[in-house]
Amino acid sequence: MLLLNLDHVAVAVHDLDEAIQRHMALFGAEPISREVVESQGVEEAMIAVGGSHLQLLAALDPDTPVGRFLAKRGEGLHHIAYAVADIDTALRHLESEGAELIDREPRIGGGGRRIAFVHPRTFGGVLLELVEIA
Amino acid sequence: MLLLNLDHVAVAVHDLDEAIQRHMALFGAEPISREVVESQGVEEAMIAVGGSHLQLLAALDPDTPVGRFLAKRGEGLHHIAYAVADIDTALRHLESEGAELIDREPRIGGGGRRIAFVHPRTFGGVLLELVEIA
Repeated sequence: MLLLNLDHVAVAVHDLDEAIQRHMALFGAEPISREVVESQGVEEAMIAVGGSHLQLLAALDPDTPVGRFLAKRGEGLHHIAYAVADIDTALRHLESEGAELIDREPRIGGGGRRIAFVHPRTFGGVLLELVEIA
Repeated sequence: MLLLNLDHVAVAVHDLDEAIQRHMALFGAEPISREVVESQGVEEAMIAVGGSHLQLLAALDPDTPVGRFLAKRGEGLHHIAYAVADIDTALRHLESEGAELIDREPRIGGGGRRIAFVHPRTFGGVLLELVEIA
């Protein structure tokens, strides 16, 4: 299995506009994209940091995964995403190694990319996303 | 302030050897370095993922920041690190923007690099490390 990149690190925030402005003031980096992803119940902004990205995630509704995360734990690191060349092969490999897949088949995430989530019980208590990069 | 890169994402783990082996089996990526950093009470391993890194952190003792994190929350995402060209200028800038600095002056971290930590109250509940890259 080949990891192409650490595509992004996602941070759950209460207020997306405020977080974008605060990140800009602190670190001088502003979003390269911003998008509502209804299927995941989030509005997300991507900020380029070198060859990777910080993703800011705000919940569209309290009754969504990110909404529940914020209610339970407050703002903080939510997941990391590894970029792979072939997500179908990657998922079959992970399954063969005993990974607990949240998405057994890829679905469409932000930017129209094929993604899949892997349960934090799989590795280091970390919610992991795979993103297929063309 | 110029962010050069997302240098690494750090994950606190109970057993460093086991985590390294598990990451290798799942993702086919093994450490490029491994080091005891006494001043931070950790043993750390760096795994290259594209242009960034996953850092695995194990506590040298339960009574260390990472030891207390593991006791309280279990394994999981611990902090992220931004690479900067001039850490002194970066710290003064962050201070002027109201950031809460854990290290007001840089100290020496893994790999002999100059680092400083910024309190999670500063941005998005995320413990942030600055790393000076020559």
